[in-house]
Amino acid sequence: MSKFSKIEFCSTRIDKQILTQRAYNQRWAELPEGTIPLTAADPDFPVPAAIQDALVEYLKGGYLSYGPPAGLPEFREAAAIRFSIRDGIELSADRIVAIDSAAAGMVALARAYLDVGDEMLIFDPVDFLFSHGAEKAGAKTARFRLTATGEIDWDLFESLINPRTKMIGVCQPHNPLGRNFTASELRKILELAQKYDLWILADEIWSDIVFAPGRHISMLSIEGAAERTLLLQGTSKSFGLAGARIGFIALPDTHHVASFLENSGAVYTSFGAATLSQVAAIAAWQHCSQWLAGFVAHLQSQRDFACERLARLAGVSVSRPDATFVLFPDISKTGWSSEALSEHLKQQAEVAVVPGSERWFGPGAVGHIRLSLATTREILSEALDRIESNWPV
Amino acid sequence: MSKFSKIEFCSTRIDKQILTQRAYNQRWAELPEGTIPLTAADPDFPVPAAIQDALVEYLKGGYLSYGPPAGLPEFREAAAIRFSIRDGIELSADRIVAIDSAAAGMVALARAYLDVGDEMLIFDPVDFLFSHGAEKAGAKTARFRLTATGEIDWDLFESLINPRTKMIGVCQPHNPLGRNFTASELRKILELAQKYDLWILADEIWSDIVFAPGRHISMLSIEGAAERTLLLQGTSKSFGLAGARIGFIALPDTHHVASFLENSGAVYTSFGAATLSQVAAIAAWQHCSQWLAGFVAHLQSQRDFACERLARLAGVSVSRPDATFVLFPDISKTGWSSEALSEHLKQQAEVAVVPGSERWFGPGAVGHIRLSLATTREILSEALDRIESNWPV
Repeated sequence: MSKFSKIEFCSTRIDKQILTQRAYNQRWAELPEGTIPLTAADPDFPVPAAIQDALVEYLKGGYLSYGPPAGLPEFREAAAIRFSIRDGIELSADRIVAIDSAAAGMVALARAYLDVGDEMLIFDPVDFLFSHGAEKAGAKTARFRLTATGEIDWDLFESLINPRTKMIGVCQPHNPLGRNFTASELRKILELAQKYDLWILADEIWSDIVFAPGRHISMLSIEGAAERTLLLQGTSKSFGLAGARIGFIALPDTHHVASFLENSGAVYTSFGAATLSQVAAIAAWQHCSQWLAGFVAHLQSQRDFACERLARLAGVSVSRPDATFVLFPDISKTGWSSEALSEHLKQQAEVAVVPGSERWFGPGAVGHIRLSLATTREILSEALDRIESNWPV
Repeated sequence: MSKFSKIEFCSTRIDKQILTQRAYNQRWAELPEGTIPLTAADPDFPVPAAIQDALVEYLKGGYLSYGPPAGLPEFREAAAIRFSIRDGIELSADRIVAIDSAAAGMVALARAYLDVGDEMLIFDPVDFLFSHGAEKAGAKTARFRLTATGEIDWDLFESLINPRTKMIGVCQPHNPLGRNFTASELRKILELAQKYDLWILADEIWSDIVFAPGRHISMLSIEGAAERTLLLQGTSKSFGLAGARIGFIALPDTHHVASFLENSGAVYTSFGAATLSQVAAIAAWQHCSQWLAGFVAHLQSQRDFACERLARLAGVSVSRPDATFVLFPDISKTGWSSEALSEHLKQQAEVAVVPGSERWFGPGAVGHIRLSLATTREILSEALDRIESNWPV
């Protein structure tokens, strides 16, 4: 038993003063004083103490020399062990490449596996990084409309595949819908990928945040998927490490790893993750399971609390997400646009939310807003009070 | 006076055990036990204690949230102040973008400022990152042969500029030749850039390591250069922060910054430097001047010692560099190729050096080897003893 394993998550302990100094990306440090950010998917909670301890210990060694292009051996090993065990998959360290954020990984994978003019089939709505990555590679996207709970029409999905299609992008669990694809849905995606010889880009950055009784189902756990799956993982959602810029890519085999390193420029030191950040991730995976369980339990309770309250608002329809710490209510029946409503809430309620803009999530997001739950109950409750009092309908 | 300012550089204090665990990129952690690496330009010395202290202090705050796309305000401010004062230039924080290594910056700048088919005029030899960056942007390079001390034939230099030329790449001071371009040489480069409307990519990552009585002359200190200069800076050479992946880009104005952030993907969080690494850089610039002065004085003494010893070897001609902590002796008169000699030294002398391969430095590097001086006198002396005893000529 590690000395760190008893450190638990505390659902009431946040430090607003430091958040005001450090939380950028539409959050405390960027908003007017008094505004509550339910915006970027970055928790209000400090990182687990075990991560701080590990970094302080590492710093005592005094060296921050060049690491290897694919990541520190101990990082790759820790990632392989943690995700093999958690997801019931076979993942070896030599298939893993450390990367300075899942976001950067998305672009690097798109550049490595797509050519100009290729197409990636993605869901709509979905996090903008899929289309951003495709765009950087000179590729296009085709979008399949997805809802939080509805059945997927696989014939329609298949009809979007054409000779230019080279990749299917899957966000599992799904941001912003909070949908946790079932094994049979993932299997269906794999079958189509096999039929048309496509890559599967599986962004599983949210996979630590799946609510009971559900569990994360990795694309890599589907039989036959490994040889065509490009897996992306990160630490920003589960452990508050967004500023550390650290995640990893898992590729089908070591040949893919070698090509990817060459293609991305990693062997030229022009690409790579900070070693300190890798040390933080190792600590997260090795010593923070209990902390994470507490964090997820808190988020589940936040989800239930917020869904119940939002559902009471006029013109709002909200699905209870199975995963992620974002809610994505449909506000189209209010008669307000996402942008106008978000601006109204920011000005009148002093609560910042993310509008369901086409730019950030695709056309399927229109008429929605996104709210983050990763704060204390006190702050979430206050934010919902303010939204309620200033609801314009 | 800061509490850190009295911490001095210690030229004898290194920790081989930790280097063996942490120093990758052709160094201690990657070589057979007993081999001395005079390879990658990464010092054997630990980072200044002030950097460790600053990181530990920052970690106490508990948050590693998303930073802003261009870098933390305090990072940009610290960079602007430090380099304005050191180089006698006007550099404002809003022209600065934090970047996860000068190497990554080189690629990002090439992608942002060059189109497919464009040409960058660079010196030969020079660090491979110039041609690597151009290649990633789909551009080509033209190379102007440079020696450590010879006069530059500006007519010949100008004759390499053609309608496709869009940029001149300048490594100041120059790796691997250790040449410190004079103000009048930089002025000449600027004149040509003005005449043909070219960008100047000024890689000044080595600018802290200039030997007395010389001093660094930044391209930005040349009158009229600011509007067409893209400056690159890093922390890996001066402060041992290679593994932290942190440097910055300085652009002509805020419009350039906005375009660059959009183009590079920084506004999509798919690009950016770890906040912890930014904190390390701030500490380096604010609290490590005295440490740095000691480090450079030690390197100057190492340079004199090693040049004197290398010059005695049969077939070797070595220039005393004015800057950088690498030597680049011409070994062509030994009759050995750079690669064969490097391999011989690795096997027989158990000393690793970098061969002057075309791949790493361009055709002008052929017949040279590169050796790093950033270690203790004891280790350098031992390495030179071994080279001497095993010299094949």
